[in-house]
Amino acid sequence: MNYSLSQILKHIEPLDSKAIEAARARQNELTKPRGSLGRLEELSIRIAGIKGEIIRGFEYKAIVTMAADHGVVEAGVTLYPQEVTRQMVLNFLNGGAGINVLAQFVGARVIVVDMGVAGGFEPHPKLVCKMIDFGTKNMTKGPAMTRQQALDAIESGIAIIEAEIAKGLDIVGTGDMGIGNTTASSAIAAVVTGKSPEKITGRGEGLDDGQLAHKIKVVQKALDVNKPDSRDPIDVLSKVGGFEIGGLAGVMLGAAAHRIPVVIDGFISGAAALIATGLAPGLKDYLIAAHLSAESGHKTLLHHLGLTPLLSLEMRLGEGTGAALGITIAEAAVKTLAEMATFAEAGVSESQKEAE
Amino acid sequence: MNYSLSQILKHIEPLDSKAIEAARARQNELTKPRGSLGRLEELSIRIAGIKGEIIRGFEYKAIVTMAADHGVVEAGVTLYPQEVTRQMVLNFLNGGAGINVLAQFVGARVIVVDMGVAGGFEPHPKLVCKMIDFGTKNMTKGPAMTRQQALDAIESGIAIIEAEIAKGLDIVGTGDMGIGNTTASSAIAAVVTGKSPEKITGRGEGLDDGQLAHKIKVVQKALDVNKPDSRDPIDVLSKVGGFEIGGLAGVMLGAAAHRIPVVIDGFISGAAALIATGLAPGLKDYLIAAHLSAESGHKTLLHHLGLTPLLSLEMRLGEGTGAALGITIAEAAVKTLAEMATFAEAGVSESQKEAE
Repeated sequence: MNYSLSQILKHIEPLDSKAIEAARARQNELTKPRGSLGRLEELSIRIAGIKGEIIRGFEYKAIVTMAADHGVVEAGVTLYPQEVTRQMVLNFLNGGAGINVLAQFVGARVIVVDMGVAGGFEPHPKLVCKMIDFGTKNMTKGPAMTRQQALDAIESGIAIIEAEIAKGLDIVGTGDMGIGNTTASSAIAAVVTGKSPEKITGRGEGLDDGQLAHKIKVVQKALDVNKPDSRDPIDVLSKVGGFEIGGLAGVMLGAAAHRIPVVIDGFISGAAALIATGLAPGLKDYLIAAHLSAESGHKTLLHHLGLTPLLSLEMRLGEGTGAALGITIAEAAVKTLAEMATFAEAGVSESQKEAE
Repeated sequence: MNYSLSQILKHIEPLDSKAIEAARARQNELTKPRGSLGRLEELSIRIAGIKGEIIRGFEYKAIVTMAADHGVVEAGVTLYPQEVTRQMVLNFLNGGAGINVLAQFVGARVIVVDMGVAGGFEPHPKLVCKMIDFGTKNMTKGPAMTRQQALDAIESGIAIIEAEIAKGLDIVGTGDMGIGNTTASSAIAAVVTGKSPEKITGRGEGLDDGQLAHKIKVVQKALDVNKPDSRDPIDVLSKVGGFEIGGLAGVMLGAAAHRIPVVIDGFISGAAALIATGLAPGLKDYLIAAHLSAESGHKTLLHHLGLTPLLSLEMRLGEGTGAALGITIAEAAVKTLAEMATFAEAGVSESQKEAE
């Protein structure tokens, strides 16, 4: 069941309204004041709508962490050298990164994907190779990638998630690694949301005021040089995106086509979601925003997507670290819906208001 | 080592500054941009200071959920009948409540305590009986309890947490059940923070505007009739508090005296923390605010305590449900500090800024 992009787009269906009704009815019968579990209730109801039924938990959880390099680092927009992308992928494979620790803590496997890291890798049993090229081109001088590469990146993401679904998958989180990728994500977010680069561009891994001002100019230049068409998500991705961003968009689309909820991480995953929801607006209902990143443009980006983040812990690491914690909150929501006793089962009196 | 209240107060020591330094140094060596794990970093550092060392996780976790009734329900401040307190305790014992589901999900045991539920209970192997009386008196007519009962409630909490520590305990969350206890907590919060009942009183389990206005008048009357002395936490607890609130204050003090972090739940646990930190200001450093409750006065209360909540999920169930999720975030923080690789271990380049 390996779908192409055009096939996948046809398979993203609306949420199951009967399952939503059943979940809402059950929430109102559980031994608690109505609404008192707050956002856990709405989340449990939406997940029932995604899955088509009230589920008991997530047996198989995964974080897909995609890495790629960005030609725009030539323009001096980062504090870390480009080789850190490659070094961090090796750290993921060795289990030493933040995402390894947090994914293990929440019981999720990590799928590490090379979408196009400069230098490449020796074959490694834990590394999924979908390398499109050794990093994108410098988007201040022309398109970051060709239109075909953008399509390839998305379809690679679809292929990866379908392979994982075949192994067993009930919820997926998205993560990224790529020195320079907040710059590409800022450019995507500026185009899609229509906000200025000043409004949307943040400090990445810790730029100071002068460095931030330079990064904003770089984003503006990339937009001026490429003139991405905001109505054409593939055009936006190819001109100012990244291979991992395209791959993550594919993961989101592929998961939704198979009715699997997608917990999106921070700013880079959010940029991928802008591309993916541009292709399939119905995807939005399958996306769960894990957290509000410390990256300043993230709030605007989530607002555009119509998503409210679950957590706000001032995290800005990427890798899927926020998504891992988001998966745990989602699972807590699902468990309360499935496992709590009803008023009738427990012999507890309802409130005067609710009993009416 | 069963301590009295006065002994416990002497045993609450400042955090371990050497452990804090060691934790901060390690955070800065881990393979991520400095500060990029946001509040997880500060939390991991504080927990190291509480424990006196960098720990690898929490082997033994518990939620102490204390129940009691409130005479002020006579004044018509709730939607649920008083018997729901008792019914919900039975639900806790049968494993059907929100706290059972969430505690199990995060790997915490639940200790259910009868601090003074109207009607009482048959002996039950899972129920800890520390009953002070069958509910407090109606605080709009006089003190909710005697000064001796207030002291007994706190010392009962100390005894319970010390018994749990003897069984093995690395982190504890607090929870409550008591129809009417947001009214008592509002009165405590008004006295201690100096805010008016209008500012601090919320809708509890779902009051409408008229019912809320009445509840505010009830809180004001309790303050007028009793004139609690804000400088004397025991006076405040006895005049407008509750048995479960006193018990939770004791749990917090006892845990801190044994260097165990305490994850406080919502508004009622917050009121208990106001009493407990009034007795021992140093306790504050041992408290972790799990979440911002939907109860409107909670923000003011946490601000007064100087605590920033980890989560904001619009929950308002109590029972320790927020604390259970808070424990998971705290454990995630501890795991990242203990288990992530350092730059040197992973062979990852530091940023230009940090390498300086």
